[in-house]
Amino acid sequence: MPCNYDPPVNWEPVMNYQRFFEEAIDQIHAERRYRVFADLERIAGQFPRAIWRANGRAEEITVWCSNDYLGMGQHPDVIAAMQNVAGRMGSGAGGTRNISGNNHPLVELEHELADLHGKEAGLVFTSGFVSNEAAISTIARLLPNCLVLSDELNHASMIEGVRRSGAEKKILRHNDMAHLESQLQAAGRERAKLIVFESVYSMDGDIAPIKQIADLAEKYNAMTYIDEVHAVGMYGPRGGGITEREGLAHRIDIIEGTLAKAFGTLGGYITGTRTVVDAVRSYAPGFIFTTSLPPAIAAAATTAIRHLKTSQQERDGQQRQAQRTKEVLSAAGLPVMPSQTHIVPLLVGDPELCKMASDRLLGLHGIYIQPINYPTVPRGTERLRITPTPFHSDALIDALQDALVETWDALGIPYGETGRPAVAKSDRIIPLLVPKSGG
Amino acid sequence: MPCNYDPPVNWEPVMNYQRFFEEAIDQIHAERRYRVFADLERIAGQFPRAIWRANGRAEEITVWCSNDYLGMGQHPDVIAAMQNVAGRMGSGAGGTRNISGNNHPLVELEHELADLHGKEAGLVFTSGFVSNEAAISTIARLLPNCLVLSDELNHASMIEGVRRSGAEKKILRHNDMAHLESQLQAAGRERAKLIVFESVYSMDGDIAPIKQIADLAEKYNAMTYIDEVHAVGMYGPRGGGITEREGLAHRIDIIEGTLAKAFGTLGGYITGTRTVVDAVRSYAPGFIFTTSLPPAIAAAATTAIRHLKTSQQERDGQQRQAQRTKEVLSAAGLPVMPSQTHIVPLLVGDPELCKMASDRLLGLHGIYIQPINYPTVPRGTERLRITPTPFHSDALIDALQDALVETWDALGIPYGETGRPAVAKSDRIIPLLVPKSGG
Ligand SMILES: Cc1ncc(COP(=O)(O)O)c(C=O)c1O
Ligand SMILES: Cc1ncc(COP(=O)(O)O)c(C=O)c1O
Repeated sequence: MPCNYDPPVNWEPVMNYQRFFEEAIDQIHAERRYRVFADLERIAGQFPRAIWRANGRAEEITVWCSNDYLGMGQHPDVIAAMQNVAGRMGSGAGGTRNISGNNHPLVELEHELADLHGKEAGLVFTSGFVSNEAAISTIARLLPNCLVLSDELNHASMIEGVRRSGAEKKILRHNDMAHLESQLQAAGRERAKLIVFESVYSMDGDIAPIKQIADLAEKYNAMTYIDEVHAVGMYGPRGGGITEREGLAHRIDIIEGTLAKAFGTLGGYITGTRTVVDAVRSYAPGFIFTTSLPPAIAAAATTAIRHLKTSQQERDGQQRQAQRTKEVLSAAGLPVMPSQTHIVPLLVGDPELCKMASDRLLGLHGIYIQPINYPTVPRGTERLRITPTPFHSDALIDALQDALVETWDALGIPYGETGRPAVAKSDRIIPLLVPKSGG
Repeated sequence: MPCNYDPPVNWEPVMNYQRFFEEAIDQIHAERRYRVFADLERIAGQFPRAIWRANGRAEEITVWCSNDYLGMGQHPDVIAAMQNVAGRMGSGAGGTRNISGNNHPLVELEHELADLHGKEAGLVFTSGFVSNEAAISTIARLLPNCLVLSDELNHASMIEGVRRSGAEKKILRHNDMAHLESQLQAAGRERAKLIVFESVYSMDGDIAPIKQIADLAEKYNAMTYIDEVHAVGMYGPRGGGITEREGLAHRIDIIEGTLAKAFGTLGGYITGTRTVVDAVRSYAPGFIFTTSLPPAIAAAATTAIRHLKTSQQERDGQQRQAQRTKEVLSAAGLPVMPSQTHIVPLLVGDPELCKMASDRLLGLHGIYIQPINYPTVPRGTERLRITPTPFHSDALIDALQDALVETWDALGIPYGETGRPAVAKSDRIIPLLVPKSGG
């Protein structure tokens, strides 16, 4: 698990708390994974532009790693919904769902989500993280002697849910159907089983074989739980995710998603049968004992979902610009990792280089792409994870390519298999070494 | 723990998931603790008034159980901050703290919180629940062989944090200093120990002996973690909570709070030394792997905190109206439970009666007070938990008293020790049986 810390073997007899936590942080520094957050202010109406503050200076940069995948966070209707409802109903919910916090926009949002996935019921949580942790742990804990079958690349929130359930778990080799089948078979039809997986894996951009998983689940009588966090809004004719695109939503028991990525706001949810959703609603501490989402957030999310149910423009724009980004970067010989989706990972393969590349891109080129290091991805696969949106124009993509080539050359990062093309792009490099526009 | 379900002993050989979850819900019905959420729409500018929707009808009611304790959720400056920042920066954060979601208003909010509690650093989470779960579990998991000493009335989020840490725990008798000392002594000065407790216990309204806990912690070298969720904004000259009021903030290692109650928005936080806060920031999955709070929410929260740092008016109003509520209800012989704070619990002592009283108050009197039943409070202490705010006028308090007396009489709920006063209030009852004003 990502977040462990192995304390040194010898301790002083009396616990020195301050020293102890200092050493815990030193260890993270030593592993080169201490994180400094970039201080950003996104500019509505000008996404993906943002103001970046560092060392007492503020400058404008281009964000290339946001998960506001479709730019819905700056959609005028979404912002207006948030502003209007805040004006009418105030800034907060004022209570838990059960104690005065069940605001009407939240009730509407849950109907909207159930409809989005063609399910009987929806349930909203304060985040996608909490929805996974609370729902998976509650379902697997309620089912007697449940066996959880969990893909090895599942997100931390799902891992937390599985762990918190106390149920027995088997980690499945990523998208490996033979492994899944052998585990299902070994457990037998009689035993309660929950298969937990994602549709789009966010760090590689690959897609699970949902139909095969549903077939196996049926054959061996297992429940299925899918995380569509990186797909909702973006795939399927109404934005219902990969399950919608492939006509498989009705074959998955619980579809989970977030409101904080393609829907541009905050919160998470599950959808499923009325009964399962009601059980989670009634038994999950992470749902019950916390203040509900503000009505203004719920209304903004509903507006984004409704918009994307009928508008194809954002999805088309995202796919087009993601495809173009892959092509342009590949043509420049950059090591674009294979991806079936809008996610464009660029292999660096070393944590220090990855961090240096990111720092150089930001400081020199005004391009912000956060390095993705262990524990988020396996060691040796450190990468820059690029997320083109409909608002990343062709000109921005070209500028990205130039900046990346300059960075790859300057730091000596390996190019992809085809290598750097013979036609040198270096004529493009020089202008970029002068202070960038908008800086 | 509140949320368990004991499955029937005999299971069919093949798991029937649907049936199973139906039975899990049936069990909650059987225990009379199935929850139906009141569908509410609060009216900014008219708090505590709200629109209540039921059976296809919408009517105006008075909310008497909100945790928007000071009405900051409708403060014009707070709403304006939310609207302005949404307009300037969009509706969401667009990423986790590390990956493009570290928005500038959130950075400012953390400085504001550190200042509020006189600590070196602050860290914001998506909720108070998550802040407790993530911080307690991370601290207790990092410390080698940590013993957690946890008050028996601690909130579910703290219980989850303790459990998730995997550390050994001892449950302390509520606010029992002799018990705490004996446990500390047994563990010894050498061992890492974390004392976890609340300042204001929200269901009874009593206050922990913070100074004595700090003294014992010092004597036995334990860390201290306090949940000030029901005190921040409301106690202390700047709203720093009970620790501020009693000049004890510097003696507690970690002060935790929420932005979703007196500060009227959403989110939770911890404050402490730079080192401890950095360790939680760097190791807690519940902090790392989730989208950060939207800038508009952060800005609204900062506005509320800043306002309450200098304005005493809301705190005075709340204390005055809470005191008056206690006096008026006590004078009417109603069983007001002892409370040292703004929380006014009214004993019913039976889950069905409690639910009936709440239904009658809402349906007949347009007064919304959610019944508090097991598992939130121990069986036999079911209650109506009343939270007067500065916006609950004297007239509203009088109307509340009339409605409660009518309800107590109609349902035969026991009065307090003094009994129902000889001077019958029944002359007041009849008018209340006609449709209430504003319905
Ligand atoms: C696969 C996956 N599931 C769940 C989450 C959590 O969603 P949220 O950001 O809404 O907490 C994330 C990322 O944040 C994710 O990548
Ligand atoms: C004592 C206590 N701590 C923490 C929380 C959780 O805070 P939040 O509502 O911000 O999740 C609550 C109630 O909601 C609480 O009563």
